[in-house]
Amino acid sequence: MTFHAIVPAGGAGTRLWPLSRRSAPKFLADLTGSGKSMLQATVDRLAPITDDVTIVTGAAHADAVAALVPGASLVVEPSARGTMGAIGLAAAIVEARDPEAVVGSFAADHLIADEEAFRRAVLRAAEAAEQGYVVTIGISPDRPSTAYGYIEAGESFGPACSVARFVEKPDEATAAEYLATGRYLWNAGMFVAKAGVLMDALARFHPELAEPLRALAATWEAGREDGVAEYWEPLESAVIDTAVAEPLAEEGGVAVVPVEMGWSDVGDYASLADVVESNEQVAPRGSEQTVLAPPDALVYTGHKPVVVVGIPEAVVVDMDDVLFVTTRASSQDVKLTVEALGRSGLGRLA
Amino acid sequence: MTFHAIVPAGGAGTRLWPLSRRSAPKFLADLTGSGKSMLQATVDRLAPITDDVTIVTGAAHADAVAALVPGASLVVEPSARGTMGAIGLAAAIVEARDPEAVVGSFAADHLIADEEAFRRAVLRAAEAAEQGYVVTIGISPDRPSTAYGYIEAGESFGPACSVARFVEKPDEATAAEYLATGRYLWNAGMFVAKAGVLMDALARFHPELAEPLRALAATWEAGREDGVAEYWEPLESAVIDTAVAEPLAEEGGVAVVPVEMGWSDVGDYASLADVVESNEQVAPRGSEQTVLAPPDALVYTGHKPVVVVGIPEAVVVDMDDVLFVTTRASSQDVKLTVEALGRSGLGRLA
Repeated sequence: MTFHAIVPAGGAGTRLWPLSRRSAPKFLADLTGSGKSMLQATVDRLAPITDDVTIVTGAAHADAVAALVPGASLVVEPSARGTMGAIGLAAAIVEARDPEAVVGSFAADHLIADEEAFRRAVLRAAEAAEQGYVVTIGISPDRPSTAYGYIEAGESFGPACSVARFVEKPDEATAAEYLATGRYLWNAGMFVAKAGVLMDALARFHPELAEPLRALAATWEAGREDGVAEYWEPLESAVIDTAVAEPLAEEGGVAVVPVEMGWSDVGDYASLADVVESNEQVAPRGSEQTVLAPPDALVYTGHKPVVVVGIPEAVVVDMDDVLFVTTRASSQDVKLTVEALGRSGLGRLA
Repeated sequence: MTFHAIVPAGGAGTRLWPLSRRSAPKFLADLTGSGKSMLQATVDRLAPITDDVTIVTGAAHADAVAALVPGASLVVEPSARGTMGAIGLAAAIVEARDPEAVVGSFAADHLIADEEAFRRAVLRAAEAAEQGYVVTIGISPDRPSTAYGYIEAGESFGPACSVARFVEKPDEATAAEYLATGRYLWNAGMFVAKAGVLMDALARFHPELAEPLRALAATWEAGREDGVAEYWEPLESAVIDTAVAEPLAEEGGVAVVPVEMGWSDVGDYASLADVVESNEQVAPRGSEQTVLAPPDALVYTGHKPVVVVGIPEAVVVDMDDVLFVTTRASSQDVKLTVEALGRSGLGRLA
């Protein structure tokens, strides 16, 4: 089996501003003080079990990505067409060389504490993929989160379980019910399948997407640089979950590998603080500054020590160009704050 | 009448750390973003109504004071001996030249919003001082503060009122009673008297203080530099309130001029925030940084914009060497924090 990882690196979330910016998305940031970007960490996490890692990113970030992760292959999207466009293009390129090769797509900006558990789960998913399934990795929930979509697991078989259905983000009562059944998993948006299986499924559900993607891959594989105007630009934006995974699950074609691995999509400061260990202050730019703060504080130091007194669950981000102070409880307001920057003449910091 | 202002500039309050430091006390800081230190503001406030301003400070701060306030006379205390030592030494020097001259002592680190009201009150105090009283400026209380000592005013006469007694910081119930009577004023520690009257009173209550102070003043007035070891070093530390004002008040020798002038001793961040106008962010080092914060935030910017979200009554101080984040409600904990710096290897920042 050859196994190709696909890492779509796009999106410009503002909920972790100012660690992430419009010009420097979350995947370029070091959120945990590990000394490497989330993208590099994602690639490093995959390297031991994959033959190749392909990063799919936009032209705006291509140079930064190439500099940060020189070891990875790079596919530059002509423009954004959703996760289906990004993953589909990379999968179609793999398929053109070897339809039996397994591809797996993994977000560039998630945190995973237990990397061994992650790799074991991915290898099991690849095993199920060899049997012809599109396989997702399902996170065993430890709380009734309303922030994620859920996967209802069905019968177990060999390396995985069948997927009964995908469900949207639930309300709190429904999430609690899901948790109580023990059959629901968080959808972390990771998909593993044979390149040919994935593209064939796409061709059945969305031929208008699969055909141009395959055609563009063919021109690129032939060493030409044309086809973008003809095939890519007219493409509709789509997400892989609704374009392939959900309709295929109804047919019984999707499997899931459940895993506990300390996963987070670090969607905001509250979830970031959940992941960064208590009392472990963070120096994202390699500085080693002293922090005097309560254990529940999340502090990103810059060039000087930081002292925090009397603010429960404080979040302090000391960047070169801006100082941001908030609390975990205000995580949801960060996005609004970023939108307000322009009105205060601080649009350059967004 | 000649009128000499005495400004004791000492003390190393830690409750406004890191704006004030052990090595750079509050009077050297610009707490309001006015562009000048509190000491300079104090001197400027007095200049229009005084013939001379003498700053009394320790050797540690003499150079900084001389550089900051080149127009003022400087008396360098050989070592700290309380407000009685500082004011008494300066008063004894004035007395040696002209016992009839009026002296007034004013702390170097208080804020006064209404400077005209301040000057009118001081001139009335000087008028009463010419009649032989030791005169204090009493602040009309606008709330039952337990942070200040109180002055009970007696009969009104000409420019002032007699002082019935001085009382220590009260508990809350007592403070409320004081406020209800309308007869109590806050003791702001400002005293105005003829130099000879003040020194004679000290000589009656504490000859062991008055004699060496007069002797040291005489040697300094004679142009000699000796006498420190003989007269100053053995001096006991004392405060002017208990050494002179309180016993003299019992004899009916103290008067008070009541005034409303927006006074604060800015003892901590809570009282500083009361004085700095709502939504007026502060750039203590002359920078003009944008601040995005709720109106109740008190923000001292450094070299970059500051954004605060979701922290009621936040206090943010962005210094070159340390970043401090707290709330007004935690004002009382700042002192403890400063004491804890050394244990975290940050003693240099205290």
